[in-house]
Amino acid sequence: MAKRDADKNASYKAAGVDLAAGERAVALIKEALTGSYGPAVMAGVGAFGGLFDLSRSERAGNEGYVLAASTDSIGTKSKVAVALSRFDTVGADIVNHCVNDILVQGARPLFFLDYIAAAILEPGMVAAIVRGAAAACQEAGCALLGGETAELPGVYAPGEFELVGTVVGALKREDVVDGRDINEGDKILALMSGGLQTNGYSLARQLLDGRYGDVLGGATVGEALLLPHRSYLQPLSGLLGTGLLRGMAHITGGGIPGNLPRVLPRGLGAAINNDSWPVPEIFRLIQALGDVSDEEMRRVFNLGAGYLIVVRPGDEAGVKALIGEEVFTIGTVVAGGGVRFF
Amino acid sequence: MAKRDADKNASYKAAGVDLAAGERAVALIKEALTGSYGPAVMAGVGAFGGLFDLSRSERAGNEGYVLAASTDSIGTKSKVAVALSRFDTVGADIVNHCVNDILVQGARPLFFLDYIAAAILEPGMVAAIVRGAAAACQEAGCALLGGETAELPGVYAPGEFELVGTVVGALKREDVVDGRDINEGDKILALMSGGLQTNGYSLARQLLDGRYGDVLGGATVGEALLLPHRSYLQPLSGLLGTGLLRGMAHITGGGIPGNLPRVLPRGLGAAINNDSWPVPEIFRLIQALGDVSDEEMRRVFNLGAGYLIVVRPGDEAGVKALIGEEVFTIGTVVAGGGVRFF
Repeated sequence: MAKRDADKNASYKAAGVDLAAGERAVALIKEALTGSYGPAVMAGVGAFGGLFDLSRSERAGNEGYVLAASTDSIGTKSKVAVALSRFDTVGADIVNHCVNDILVQGARPLFFLDYIAAAILEPGMVAAIVRGAAAACQEAGCALLGGETAELPGVYAPGEFELVGTVVGALKREDVVDGRDINEGDKILALMSGGLQTNGYSLARQLLDGRYGDVLGGATVGEALLLPHRSYLQPLSGLLGTGLLRGMAHITGGGIPGNLPRVLPRGLGAAINNDSWPVPEIFRLIQALGDVSDEEMRRVFNLGAGYLIVVRPGDEAGVKALIGEEVFTIGTVVAGGGVRFF
Repeated sequence: MAKRDADKNASYKAAGVDLAAGERAVALIKEALTGSYGPAVMAGVGAFGGLFDLSRSERAGNEGYVLAASTDSIGTKSKVAVALSRFDTVGADIVNHCVNDILVQGARPLFFLDYIAAAILEPGMVAAIVRGAAAACQEAGCALLGGETAELPGVYAPGEFELVGTVVGALKREDVVDGRDINEGDKILALMSGGLQTNGYSLARQLLDGRYGDVLGGATVGEALLLPHRSYLQPLSGLLGTGLLRGMAHITGGGIPGNLPRVLPRGLGAAINNDSWPVPEIFRLIQALGDVSDEEMRRVFNLGAGYLIVVRPGDEAGVKALIGEEVFTIGTVVAGGGVRFF
């Protein structure tokens, strides 16, 4: 990874901290990366920057392509990983979160870069995170092109860590999905998240503290909370560039009311049927424990509806058939702004 | 910025924290960004991801271009900014650090994304950081395409913050600088940093704690520590693509011994003359206060030689004349690995 082996760590060597652990982590990281490299990667591990040859990528050959980019973190989901001492899933969380964010615009990912920081980095933790990120990158067909690890004592609380990711993708200019063709009467379809994705953990942790070991359905509460943020790229891949997807929204913090309006043209809103999709157990538990209002729940969580697509009424059945997994029609585009639940 | 206005903050609204401050920050951020946008930016603030049209960029038209990318943070330099309550310079720090990292490979930046996180974000601080980053982006001719702010209580120590950046640049495939043509006898030239850039702050802070107000030359110790990480793009811009630059190294953590060998072909090393460039006061003060060995100083700091270029002996004078600022010849490429100081 770009400079992972040289940069910030060096200052701690000077300050008297053993660097051997960091060097072991670098070796483990290098191993995890190669699987995500395709012929387009010209420079990866050890280079100052990663180099990606667009013309050697299957995705974007040459002219007429637009780059899409997004950066984000897993937020305080990292605290759940720390509480459970489990670091193999958060790598997928950050990759998929970023991949979904540019998928909304119709882009497929080209490459990804990660940043892992803590007061003190534990090599096994770093290796587990990078392994998870590399696997998610491979699944998404993108290269884990670079990254950085940093030990910042005094900036981070002891034992905590931060995981930031950046994805760069590409798409043909004419295939950009920006919602401009959405009309009144269009159907809103939801793909299922299975859990919290990467948002709402401050409230969830507050209410579920001390209950991570409780059994919930076939798993524990901790496992349900740590369920990886899934990628919606694979099920929607065949629909990109077809013109059938008029708009999409990745339901992160802010829920449906905070995210769906971002793709609706001015003057249009949405009417959403609350009972039109199955809400996972974990959300019901959170609501019950905290006596949280429905409105609050909808503002904080995706409630299972992790990713929305807007299609013409006549395309609804065809699109559902093409997606290859259960998709729920949860509402309709209506005149007037905002999101109304019924 | 991509999702800056919707994502992580939402969870804190639910947890009872006032979001108005965050919303004010978003307004301030939007203002700061527009200056860095060129015709290539199709989607910026408010979109899920940023969209950048390669073909509308002056930098990279179409075929034969390679993308370069790097991600990094300002490390514990953030703690100096906190100590001095000054946040207008760190935005430039992270942009320039990233820009320099891909410049090493011969790339010019296309766009940049930032990530700012803390336990609680102060809107004025966020706005100052983004303003600084936007100005540095504008200077580098790149767009501040997206970013994210996150409040992660419990992950960050109270009052501290993290600043992460990712740059994406482009260059013609045949213009990639990777050091492969470096030969024995080539000259090593240094551009001057003026200060610590973004590395060595753990040691520096440890030794200078309580002395930030002391006068050092024409400034205070605090000001010397907070001196922005400069960009080497402008002085070297005219040399990119000429073939005159056989190799480059950005001197970050690890100093010259940790960074220069990354661009030297196997079997070649460097002989560096310690007395061939002026070492800024701040480094002499650190060494004296901590009784730090010369070797340690060279491993932790750039000591003023912030960016190195390797040129043919016959090109030395011509390259120096083209750079347009004072450049020092600090050493020679020699047979055998490693870096020897004399």
